[in-house]
Amino acid sequence: MQDTFGQFKAYLARVRDLQMASAVLVWDRETYLPPAGAAARARQLGSLSEMAHERFVDDQVGAWLAALQPYEDSLPFDSDDASLIRVARRDYDKARRVPSQLVGDLARAASLGQQTWVDARQAADFSRFQPSLETLVDLRLAWAECFDYEDSIYDPLLDAFEPGLTTAPVRRIFDAFRPPLVDLVAAIRERHDRVDASCLTGDFDEDAQWDLGLQALKLIGYDFNRGRQDRAAHPFTIHFSSDDVRITTRFDPHNIASALFSSIHEGGHALYELGVSPALDDTLLGDGASMVLHESQSRLFENVVGRSRPFWRHFYPALQARFPRFNGVDLETFYRAVNQVKPSFIRVEADEVTYGLHIILRFELEEALVTRQLAVADLPAAWNEKMQAYLGLTPPDDALGVLQDIHWSGGMIGYFPDYLLGSMLSVQLYARARADLPDLEAQLERGQLAPLRQWMADHVHQHGRKFTLDELADRVLGTPLSPDPYLAYLRERYGEIYGL
Amino acid sequence: MQDTFGQFKAYLARVRDLQMASAVLVWDRETYLPPAGAAARARQLGSLSEMAHERFVDDQVGAWLAALQPYEDSLPFDSDDASLIRVARRDYDKARRVPSQLVGDLARAASLGQQTWVDARQAADFSRFQPSLETLVDLRLAWAECFDYEDSIYDPLLDAFEPGLTTAPVRRIFDAFRPPLVDLVAAIRERHDRVDASCLTGDFDEDAQWDLGLQALKLIGYDFNRGRQDRAAHPFTIHFSSDDVRITTRFDPHNIASALFSSIHEGGHALYELGVSPALDDTLLGDGASMVLHESQSRLFENVVGRSRPFWRHFYPALQARFPRFNGVDLETFYRAVNQVKPSFIRVEADEVTYGLHIILRFELEEALVTRQLAVADLPAAWNEKMQAYLGLTPPDDALGVLQDIHWSGGMIGYFPDYLLGSMLSVQLYARARADLPDLEAQLERGQLAPLRQWMADHVHQHGRKFTLDELADRVLGTPLSPDPYLAYLRERYGEIYGL
Repeated sequence: MQDTFGQFKAYLARVRDLQMASAVLVWDRETYLPPAGAAARARQLGSLSEMAHERFVDDQVGAWLAALQPYEDSLPFDSDDASLIRVARRDYDKARRVPSQLVGDLARAASLGQQTWVDARQAADFSRFQPSLETLVDLRLAWAECFDYEDSIYDPLLDAFEPGLTTAPVRRIFDAFRPPLVDLVAAIRERHDRVDASCLTGDFDEDAQWDLGLQALKLIGYDFNRGRQDRAAHPFTIHFSSDDVRITTRFDPHNIASALFSSIHEGGHALYELGVSPALDDTLLGDGASMVLHESQSRLFENVVGRSRPFWRHFYPALQARFPRFNGVDLETFYRAVNQVKPSFIRVEADEVTYGLHIILRFELEEALVTRQLAVADLPAAWNEKMQAYLGLTPPDDALGVLQDIHWSGGMIGYFPDYLLGSMLSVQLYARARADLPDLEAQLERGQLAPLRQWMADHVHQHGRKFTLDELADRVLGTPLSPDPYLAYLRERYGEIYGL
Repeated sequence: MQDTFGQFKAYLARVRDLQMASAVLVWDRETYLPPAGAAARARQLGSLSEMAHERFVDDQVGAWLAALQPYEDSLPFDSDDASLIRVARRDYDKARRVPSQLVGDLARAASLGQQTWVDARQAADFSRFQPSLETLVDLRLAWAECFDYEDSIYDPLLDAFEPGLTTAPVRRIFDAFRPPLVDLVAAIRERHDRVDASCLTGDFDEDAQWDLGLQALKLIGYDFNRGRQDRAAHPFTIHFSSDDVRITTRFDPHNIASALFSSIHEGGHALYELGVSPALDDTLLGDGASMVLHESQSRLFENVVGRSRPFWRHFYPALQARFPRFNGVDLETFYRAVNQVKPSFIRVEADEVTYGLHIILRFELEEALVTRQLAVADLPAAWNEKMQAYLGLTPPDDALGVLQDIHWSGGMIGYFPDYLLGSMLSVQLYARARADLPDLEAQLERGQLAPLRQWMADHVHQHGRKFTLDELADRVLGTPLSPDPYLAYLRERYGEIYGL
């Protein structure tokens, strides 16, 4: 049986190497690709995706999975080998439903779509991106139709990023969350003059912002021996092994918060991948388990920690040293500024409170799009209408509206809900960590983030994809994902700031 | 038949996409890879190389090649389709002799070897690199033993970079070339005081050097829409399609000539790949034909053009503008400085005259190495001995000696002779271009390099791998590669400078 398992593992390692190579090609496309290289890159990514898929869905893999069932049953559920067989079976059953050709078509369309999106966003002109998006929606729906779904065709799209997640619970959670969130936003709006965030805007040297970002990343424990930061049109995290986890960022020369919190957010994603057990490297378990779990880590470091008083008690002098203008701004003013709640156009720069409305807007639009209740052509108008309804704002152009996010250009439909669900989970995980680490906030105040990071590594990161979100929540929290602690957290932090 | 050819071409396009993906992974390794990522990268490159090889040597390819013979025979020799079938057959027959496992082992060892070499070179300590090199020599010899060779095991190693080239003619050419070259070096040494190159040394701002290099690359016609330059430990050119051809460079803060001529050299390689017909893209014809042809282009732009009076009559003001200290150096002094003949340690920075001796040294050492007349452990001593014999110098450490070149660390044994043969060819091609373009030198003086580049594109670049060196020399020159025009060129240019 060890022989069969060895062959199985070696075979899958090659599939994995193809996928990791694809990831390198994607990273390069987003960071350093010469403009004219986009067409060949799309072709290359299409071929690699097809080949990886073909290899993986080979009958031989099915035969190994069947033969390895007794071996799996003989092992503890959480052993590396049993987990690899179990998760490989889940992936295999899904992958077998999709033709390799469609996988390649999606990869090619996503690669070209990404380039078109960059151009369209730069020109703030949705019509340039519309044909690409129509193709991508069609292909993603063709992909979703490969699966049996009970309720909505949005189900398999959600499942792609969060295994097991379906539309109904997302709708239930968001429906319960939205009214109190809207109330909170309204209550804060009446007291908006309690916070003055003007210190965050001005002219901020890009090199100094870069250095500050690196310092923040080192503080949270990002290991530059095993990763690096580059510039890209949209910040993202990507990994090619647990020893090569990279992030990207972008700069707003007029806002010091933009790149900084973006870097910390991506740094949170990176810590997850860096924390996956090396024993899982070169296997399909060697990634973060799901996007909700991933966003729980990024949003935790960005917000729960990164916008907290203890964090800034330690880090504010570093910021002041790089930007002496802050010598005239006291810590409390700065703390309140980075926690200002104010409806705004751009999701990734939104405060924690209004952030949820950005996500709910996208969730509703995506659902309408994939159920064909909304045409791609009508997306900008629908976007602007919802922005007005939820946030009281109408984007002045598509770059500040429907074109702001990279996701759809890469065929990623069904991802956005995970940001909000992940934010909810981040608060649950933080509470659990604080219970285990009574000294936690004092540690943060001393700039000691290692105990928190180690707690996340022990409880979340190291397992890679061994456990689903539900399995992990059960192990770590003993309770499922819930919006209530998150709502309580928002009410407490922002209630205190705004004197509610 | 068109159907079979279409299937054949589509199948090979995927092999090609795997190879291009490998190239992206290599580029990334040399430019941006985090230190800890090297092990996974070696594994990934091993897998990709193995898979590309396995796909290519599949019996199906052989069946297609047999079935396509009548189609090939029905077409002109120089048609794209006939050439693809012909060159694919040549590649296939070679590839079939090598086990895929060995291909993967070589790729892994080369990837790890490269990393070890960087470290060893930095520490100027050959012993750190020795075990890697021993492995690489063993693997390359195992690879060479897969082939029938008549004369020397060095033959298949030469053939890997220059199809058809064997040891005997290389030895014959070098044996004929060396005595007059040694005489020329000796004659120049007696008049060394005719040239003062002190203006080239000092402190040169790296950003200004970078900008000057880009300006030179634009001048020779490198298209930054289809390429880019990055920093790396050793300069190289690499391509992922004819629309994505990249170069790297490195800087010596104390010598202005080092990075500049290196960039122009790599730019010459890049022009070749950028000039390959787009119709050959994503086929195995879509590369430069051979390394002798490649070096003919790089050495032509670096030396024949890049160190010529006409070139500098145009470009010197640009250099003076970036480095005002040269306002006090007249053009003739500068021209003579960049053509100073002076034995030195580093091949890539050597003048044109002594350059040949650097190559002959490597050729002799490689031959001794692969015929087991020289042990890897004895390489540094043998290197230093030959440096003393040929150039009158003993390297003060291994970094300036045996560790200076990247090639062996990547398993590239049998490449070096192509630099000198390419230099010889560059002079033959330039003479032919000048015959066709009577205004050529006046054009260079006006900064118009497009006609020369277009001539090379028409006669050399566009054909990609359709023709071998001999076939191309026959078409373009009507005469084979010869050392005589090169020797005459060296005598004329350097005789004039040194008053011989």
